[in-house]
Amino acid sequence: MSEPIIRRLALIGVGLIGGSLVKSLRRAGAVVEIVGNSRTEATQQKALSLGVVDRIESDLEKAVEGSDLVVIATPMQTMPGLLASLNRYLEPHAVVTDVGSVKAFVNAAANAHMPDHARRFVPAHPIAGREHSGVEASEPDLFEGKTVVLTPVADTDPQAVTIVEQMWRQTGAHTVTLDAQLHDELLAATSHLPHIVAYALVGYLASLKESDRLFELAAAGFYDFTRIASSDPVMWRDICITNRDEITTALEGYRDNIEALLDAIKTSDGDELHRYFAAAKRSRDAGLISKSDRDRKQ
Amino acid sequence: MSEPIIRRLALIGVGLIGGSLVKSLRRAGAVVEIVGNSRTEATQQKALSLGVVDRIESDLEKAVEGSDLVVIATPMQTMPGLLASLNRYLEPHAVVTDVGSVKAFVNAAANAHMPDHARRFVPAHPIAGREHSGVEASEPDLFEGKTVVLTPVADTDPQAVTIVEQMWRQTGAHTVTLDAQLHDELLAATSHLPHIVAYALVGYLASLKESDRLFELAAAGFYDFTRIASSDPVMWRDICITNRDEITTALEGYRDNIEALLDAIKTSDGDELHRYFAAAKRSRDAGLISKSDRDRKQ
Repeated sequence: MSEPIIRRLALIGVGLIGGSLVKSLRRAGAVVEIVGNSRTEATQQKALSLGVVDRIESDLEKAVEGSDLVVIATPMQTMPGLLASLNRYLEPHAVVTDVGSVKAFVNAAANAHMPDHARRFVPAHPIAGREHSGVEASEPDLFEGKTVVLTPVADTDPQAVTIVEQMWRQTGAHTVTLDAQLHDELLAATSHLPHIVAYALVGYLASLKESDRLFELAAAGFYDFTRIASSDPVMWRDICITNRDEITTALEGYRDNIEALLDAIKTSDGDELHRYFAAAKRSRDAGLISKSDRDRKQ
Repeated sequence: MSEPIIRRLALIGVGLIGGSLVKSLRRAGAVVEIVGNSRTEATQQKALSLGVVDRIESDLEKAVEGSDLVVIATPMQTMPGLLASLNRYLEPHAVVTDVGSVKAFVNAAANAHMPDHARRFVPAHPIAGREHSGVEASEPDLFEGKTVVLTPVADTDPQAVTIVEQMWRQTGAHTVTLDAQLHDELLAATSHLPHIVAYALVGYLASLKESDRLFELAAAGFYDFTRIASSDPVMWRDICITNRDEITTALEGYRDNIEALLDAIKTSDGDELHRYFAAAKRSRDAGLISKSDRDRKQ
């Protein structure tokens, strides 16, 4: 166990990601006191009874009072309002970070709504999750071996970046730094698009009249495949709204691939179907290999 | 261990499904002799050296000579030609079955190409699989707890149906009987569509210029989600060609859902996105619960 690197951490939004983060930091002995903030009474009770936080302050000002590090772990669309409030309440030395899946939006929101502390705001995105949401689904191992993308800007205080990097390393994750816009483009393709695809697949099946029978006859692979359609609808609504342009580009490109396959099927073009499926299989298998290589290196 | 129910079984096509089936039957003591037939020399060698079959006959006539039960486990489009040959070679008492994912097509093919034995042909589809293909990926537990759909017609010999049902029960699977056309509609939605969706997702990502980086940044969920895009391209080409109309209907319906979501994203319609995602989550979670209930009963 290392010396605590954080005296008081304020966690705004105590759900799957925020709860897992503080459980992990507590286990590593990296934090002395954890103050939780949530607007939902049921969440406040659960966070306290599960021992995820030391205390709950439902008032944001009280929650961040005396805090060295403030972690925002709420749906994307709540962030402009929260940052505006934090601009008034933060300690001058406090570092602020978030865990959201869209980064250009929060960079802009911090500049617009938290101008006095924007230099000590370090946007971050842990690429990890589960289909279950809420503090009751949180677990300290969630970030073990995972990647956390940081998207600081030229103006960001390097000391603040170091603090957020150190925090994430305590969870077993490794950090990389990316341009916020590039992050949003990449994640639109690798994360946001697959979630929308899974929601659309389940939504289509549920719309069929024999849908009960359909789910009954689904193979086990179907449940793996659609697992991510059980993710939190509010979180995904907000991701779609705040990363609209990048997601639109990805979804249109994907839709064009669906149209091309539909054409090949309608015209019984076996050569084209085989070519497409074989190329996709090669890419997927190659991607898996390089991923396993990376995992082994860790 | 029960009395052997099959004296000699001829397995046409020794891949993942055929190999798993005969491994399972052998372990259950349900078969005395297994004769394999494959056109690929590498497969012949592997099937023999892994002990999956007792002998290999590369000549179809020799392979089915003296066989009581013939199992066809090859890609869909090979079946009309195989059935035509079997019409000449089969023992009069032999029962024939297959393991293909499309059933109206094989029913029609059996009537057209194997008229002398069509009454003793029992089309079957074990709803099980893995993303790995080939006899080296076969395993005797593959069908444990799984559903096998049989699609006999009014004319099918009931004794032949009973033999195929008994065979599948030896593997730990349970059997259900469905109309072939209904099977093809249901499977187009629950299996064929998800595979095409996964291939299209990986195909789209691989087409992007930063595709290496994309696969690098993908979360673990992405690999689960796209696992089925590693399936055998020949098998999936043939499924698309032989279940064309049902797959077209499913893929068009799904495409319309993608278009609706794209519209909601482009117009920042948060209410519609939330409604759609929440309804899909409810359906998926409910489907999961009824599936777990069924699994517990088994």
